[in-house]
Amino acid sequence: MSVTNAAGFVAAGVVAGLKSTGKNDVALVQNLGPNKAAAVVFTSNRAKANPIIWSQQVIGDGIVEAIVLNSGGANCYTGAFGFQTTHATAEAVAEGLGVSAGDVLVCSTGLIGVGGQDFRDKVIGGVATAIPALNDDGGHDAALAIMTTDSKPKEAVVQGAGWSVGGMAKGAGMLAPGLATMLVVITTDALLSSADLDAALRSATRVTFDRLDSDGCMSTNDQVSLLSSGASGVSPSLEVFTAAVTAVCADLAAQLQADAEGASHNISIETINAASEDDAVEVGRSVARNNLFKAAVFGNDPNWGRVLAAIGTTTAEFDPYDVDVTMNGVRVCRSGEPDRPADDVDLTPRATHVLIDLKVGTATATILTNDLTHDYVHENSAYSS
Amino acid sequence: MSVTNAAGFVAAGVVAGLKSTGKNDVALVQNLGPNKAAAVVFTSNRAKANPIIWSQQVIGDGIVEAIVLNSGGANCYTGAFGFQTTHATAEAVAEGLGVSAGDVLVCSTGLIGVGGQDFRDKVIGGVATAIPALNDDGGHDAALAIMTTDSKPKEAVVQGAGWSVGGMAKGAGMLAPGLATMLVVITTDALLSSADLDAALRSATRVTFDRLDSDGCMSTNDQVSLLSSGASGVSPSLEVFTAAVTAVCADLAAQLQADAEGASHNISIETINAASEDDAVEVGRSVARNNLFKAAVFGNDPNWGRVLAAIGTTTAEFDPYDVDVTMNGVRVCRSGEPDRPADDVDLTPRATHVLIDLKVGTATATILTNDLTHDYVHENSAYSS
Repeated sequence: MSVTNAAGFVAAGVVAGLKSTGKNDVALVQNLGPNKAAAVVFTSNRAKANPIIWSQQVIGDGIVEAIVLNSGGANCYTGAFGFQTTHATAEAVAEGLGVSAGDVLVCSTGLIGVGGQDFRDKVIGGVATAIPALNDDGGHDAALAIMTTDSKPKEAVVQGAGWSVGGMAKGAGMLAPGLATMLVVITTDALLSSADLDAALRSATRVTFDRLDSDGCMSTNDQVSLLSSGASGVSPSLEVFTAAVTAVCADLAAQLQADAEGASHNISIETINAASEDDAVEVGRSVARNNLFKAAVFGNDPNWGRVLAAIGTTTAEFDPYDVDVTMNGVRVCRSGEPDRPADDVDLTPRATHVLIDLKVGTATATILTNDLTHDYVHENSAYSS
Repeated sequence: MSVTNAAGFVAAGVVAGLKSTGKNDVALVQNLGPNKAAAVVFTSNRAKANPIIWSQQVIGDGIVEAIVLNSGGANCYTGAFGFQTTHATAEAVAEGLGVSAGDVLVCSTGLIGVGGQDFRDKVIGGVATAIPALNDDGGHDAALAIMTTDSKPKEAVVQGAGWSVGGMAKGAGMLAPGLATMLVVITTDALLSSADLDAALRSATRVTFDRLDSDGCMSTNDQVSLLSSGASGVSPSLEVFTAAVTAVCADLAAQLQADAEGASHNISIETINAASEDDAVEVGRSVARNNLFKAAVFGNDPNWGRVLAAIGTTTAEFDPYDVDVTMNGVRVCRSGEPDRPADDVDLTPRATHVLIDLKVGTATATILTNDLTHDYVHENSAYSS
């Protein structure tokens, strides 16, 4: 399933010894073609891991033969040796598959600063194990291999007319715009050029992964890749294809939100009647990053004052005294004054909806986030990730 | 002490019934002159509480006779009735003291949305109790009355040559630039004009309260006021006076940091060799707001990768691969590579020092923050504040 759902792709997920748990930790996905077009969106963090620096070079010509991914080490801030490790990993894949190393994307995830000789040996060993294991049903094994603190693998498929789009994702913390701590591979047997793939992928990530802001932290290793084999021989319209890619990304983003480290609420912050989409995004993101609001949701406390205080820090067009706030269907603030009693709001369901009506325009946007919980603090203090 | 240390000031702190604990909750400070000059710095949050809107009008002419403060309710987002309550509070003070209501600053702190009839009655009742209680040793009682989740009152005094500056502060959460959830009153018997007071206060808050960023959240009610009685008859140079006000603000800011809700570490993030002071502030603030970094410090985990990931999200001038990070004296990252082992870092002391060397210029700045702890989550989920 997932990355091997589309025709023309094989994948594998193997144990390379990078994870102390002995679980899958190296994944390999190969595009058998006939098309080899690809597009990639990278983290916007200026502190980029070695695999990001490498993959940015690879995608320059829009051609990708394979992508290799490892968990158990981010290979970020590991110096020249770390970059050579990334290069050697791509070379190992290239040699095994008979392709050019310059067409092999590399992704790593795990602890920053990990990327020494032991890391290199295990990754290269994992590649050697993965190559003979490649098969057209290997998508799930690959999805398991990229997990870090994820509690479950993330996979999604959307079926088109004679073609499909499928993908896998990992990410459980450090989720924020710029595609944070997120590795995503999406494959399709639809036939498209690199330029069209790039347009579709950027359009899709803008309204999905870029609006998932679990904890405001942006990673150094994020990479979302889209590979087209063209094996279906079908070329859907860019519009139809973009919708399918967007649907896969939205599905994966929802799975990432649902599995965010330590979270007990999946919060959708919907801002309506904004002057612009940018305003709606800014308002939603400001609320999504407000620790006091997020802690209140954890405590099932509909503390709408913290929503308004967060909105007040934005540059969005609005009148602070003409804003409505509705939580799980109960309007608790109307035109900047208390409306229905907070006690009417039931915040016990995991799914939490915050509706902010700015009353100045027609634009809208929804930001996905999570609450701030004891478990979030525990996982991120006790676990060096 | 504190606001009554300088000659020419009387103060009181009384029980008005706003706090369920029955502790002091209304404070009053009167300037007996002969000088009545003042300056105020307000929250930069666009969602401003009624007392902020009122006080911004009061300070227009630079003359302040008295300042009244309450805990137990922020009187923010309480509609027209709430603003009338603020107005009525100033009128009650004015009538009792024989001054103009237009020269009475009002401050409120507590839960947003609280400001109904009961709140009004209690605040006005508190004013009636406070006026006869005004005395030249009432500073401590006043400091107690403005506490909310603070575990202790905050007071500071700096002695000049024949004059002094003293102040009180409250604030334990929602501390962020824009003077968040912070009420501060500073008094001096030095003789200065409103314009000089304003210059001194802005200079002081810029490098003290504005660099305290406990949890990235900005309040709707922050107000820092500086009142001059001129009772000493001494007019120090603006430079000397500014240094004294800065020292009082720095002392109070350190007390706020030390008493931040649920915190177990006081973290100083010092950025050196930045291209500009703005860059140094941006870098420090980005690290101070990184939940993953803050949770790691709580767990005594010197996770320097999270520091670099946070720096990477800024616009500051730097080379991601030529940055040094030192934690409590141990350089764990040198030029973007691991240096001394993280195990050498002892993060058990409450005082935590993070030194970031950007190696591009000569500017420096220090941001004060706290760790992200179970107690922070608990206090802000279980306590509606």
